[in-house]
Amino acid sequence: MAKINSNYQKLQAGYLFPEIGKRVRAFAEKNPAARVIRLGIGDVVLPLPAPIVDALKTGADELGKRESFRGYGPEQGYDFLLEAVAAHYASQGANVAADEVFVSDGSKCDTANIQEIFGLDNVVAVTDPVYPVYVDTSVMGGRTGAVDATGRFPGLVYLPCTAENGFDPPLPALAVDLIYLCSPNNPTGAVMSRASLQKWIDYARAHEAVILFDAAYEAFIREPGQVHSIYELPGARECAIEFRSFSKTAGFTGTRCATTVVPKELMARNDQGEIGEKVALHALWNRRQTTKFNGVSYPIQRAAAAVFSAAGKAAVDANITYYMQNAAIIREGVAKAGYVVHGGVNAPYIWLKVPAGLTSWQFFDKLLSECHVVGTPGSGFGSCGEGYFRLSAFGLRENVEEAVARIARGHA
Amino acid sequence: MAKINSNYQKLQAGYLFPEIGKRVRAFAEKNPAARVIRLGIGDVVLPLPAPIVDALKTGADELGKRESFRGYGPEQGYDFLLEAVAAHYASQGANVAADEVFVSDGSKCDTANIQEIFGLDNVVAVTDPVYPVYVDTSVMGGRTGAVDATGRFPGLVYLPCTAENGFDPPLPALAVDLIYLCSPNNPTGAVMSRASLQKWIDYARAHEAVILFDAAYEAFIREPGQVHSIYELPGARECAIEFRSFSKTAGFTGTRCATTVVPKELMARNDQGEIGEKVALHALWNRRQTTKFNGVSYPIQRAAAAVFSAAGKAAVDANITYYMQNAAIIREGVAKAGYVVHGGVNAPYIWLKVPAGLTSWQFFDKLLSECHVVGTPGSGFGSCGEGYFRLSAFGLRENVEEAVARIARGHA
Repeated sequence: MAKINSNYQKLQAGYLFPEIGKRVRAFAEKNPAARVIRLGIGDVVLPLPAPIVDALKTGADELGKRESFRGYGPEQGYDFLLEAVAAHYASQGANVAADEVFVSDGSKCDTANIQEIFGLDNVVAVTDPVYPVYVDTSVMGGRTGAVDATGRFPGLVYLPCTAENGFDPPLPALAVDLIYLCSPNNPTGAVMSRASLQKWIDYARAHEAVILFDAAYEAFIREPGQVHSIYELPGARECAIEFRSFSKTAGFTGTRCATTVVPKELMARNDQGEIGEKVALHALWNRRQTTKFNGVSYPIQRAAAAVFSAAGKAAVDANITYYMQNAAIIREGVAKAGYVVHGGVNAPYIWLKVPAGLTSWQFFDKLLSECHVVGTPGSGFGSCGEGYFRLSAFGLRENVEEAVARIARGHA
Repeated sequence: MAKINSNYQKLQAGYLFPEIGKRVRAFAEKNPAARVIRLGIGDVVLPLPAPIVDALKTGADELGKRESFRGYGPEQGYDFLLEAVAAHYASQGANVAADEVFVSDGSKCDTANIQEIFGLDNVVAVTDPVYPVYVDTSVMGGRTGAVDATGRFPGLVYLPCTAENGFDPPLPALAVDLIYLCSPNNPTGAVMSRASLQKWIDYARAHEAVILFDAAYEAFIREPGQVHSIYELPGARECAIEFRSFSKTAGFTGTRCATTVVPKELMARNDQGEIGEKVALHALWNRRQTTKFNGVSYPIQRAAAAVFSAAGKAAVDANITYYMQNAAIIREGVAKAGYVVHGGVNAPYIWLKVPAGLTSWQFFDKLLSECHVVGTPGSGFGSCGEGYFRLSAFGLRENVEEAVARIARGHA
């Protein structure tokens, strides 16, 4: 008799974004004339830049000719892309070798799948609010108990990040083994300072913990001196795995490509001996990927490599500038309208405090019904997100301006 | 202190194909003049047909224009592809709805990841010999004990498939819950008969077991009347998940696309109540995919849909015919040289008996050193594969003919 993985039944009814989609569809059906502006899900809107499209098409053409056809590629990714990624890290002052980079079809997959190489006896820490995938996949993997009344899962350690502590994740009271950190942060838009990151690296090294560092938004950092890669800091190679994505950086949300770095020095314990022997995580992740994954489509890897060409870099940077101008328009417009705002300076997300007396979902419904603007309720990212609301800078300028005008005047 | 998933340390030293690669590289370094012909790993060699390349490029162009740009797509796949897949199933006499199809980047991933929605208390059955991914991922997931002297993992139930039983998997002596079946079979090249499949469906329904049916090679069936989809048979929708791949069918090993069907009727038990309540697996797989996966690249899905166009079908069929002519050349040539051969009629794999007195790996080394031909040792697929050897029909005609000539004369 086949039995399901009953951990799935611990999950909340809906993943955040499907729930938003459902409410928006219901609203649109009742109000067919309303022009809804979506600043909810963080999806890009600008087209792929020409140098990237050209590289994708060139890759496709190569597959169409016998002399340049490619079948199975290396599961880790092609050297041309691994080397471009390593060189980009070097240009940011981070020491990453090409063979420490693993190309995949998305950071969502990788930040979830990485859990597979760690035993179930690890204590996982997440920030609160947090990108829901870290939590949901911990639940699905059997790392938690059943959800409690506040929406938290026993077994996970939550690190509250609110305006009161400047959205800076505090060290945990109890020892933790795996720590998800995301900077620039989704959803708060905060960037971890060098000092804060160093504090976490020191903690991880002292406790033999592993930091799972999600840097999917690093390209949106506009202030000089902020940390783009955790490997810019001393000691990080002994304790951190870093995830990056082409999704937001280069408009690849529908094109699909990402990278994960597992430094060769990085170790964790097995169950041999009194405290376990040290095992290199690079070999484990390599085994996971070669056994359960077949690499990213060749033309897509060509497209991703074009992101690092001179023309690709310029085009991608122009798009990011466009989005960050949107962020400034939202941030300033919404602040002028009387809201308290955070983020939006080094990240494409604006994290605003909802008016007193409203929950995040109440504010969501109010904004949708009155302004026909879709955002993301902060409580969808965790209990410490209650009372906050995320607006995304990924929109066309005219829509962003219109949305801000509607929010300022309080109606559509 | 971070702990690894120690199940990884139960795995054998190397995944089969990396080990073959290592031996071939070592040989090539010592014998730089040797022209090695590879009939080992089952990788296609013919280029992507023009209608498929064109669709891929059109999709890329769409991403380059604001009015046709696409960001995140449905994690399950775009309707245009889901509907084409469902229509193809209908043309084969199998009843599959479009919303039961899930598009992914490979059957290797899906046949591995599917385990996640099942509890660890299921008994998994695999054939022996078997595609190594089913076994290795069962080990990595913690479903087995440590490997025994014969290379088997306690906890798995092995179904021996040898010449003696016509490579037809026998029903197990003890009850099993999850059953991996692959037809046409990799590596034996055998196709399960309608009667044998019905026997398994009846077993699964009687025992509430779930069949994980890997039909990655169904397009290679050339004999009329053979079963292409398990859903052609009555009762299969209540007990089977089917995996298909564009990899071999349409030359997508480097392009990456596959489909998995989870019928809505298919249920398994949770841990509530005395024997557990029934839960729909479709909802579970949907949750798994929406939480841990972001869909396949849009241009790749366009390319995959082109496989079902009239021009695409004709081009793909021509390529399959080419490979199956290779299969006939190998099968007949090697038989004429005195080997006992199986498969190669409805599958691109020829499964030959190695000469008496040699192990599969000894024959591998002999064929490599004497004939400069690479095949795959049968023992790499399980202990019942010992004494067998797999030759793949995925080669260019001139190489296949040359390889067969070398094998016939016993030297390069």
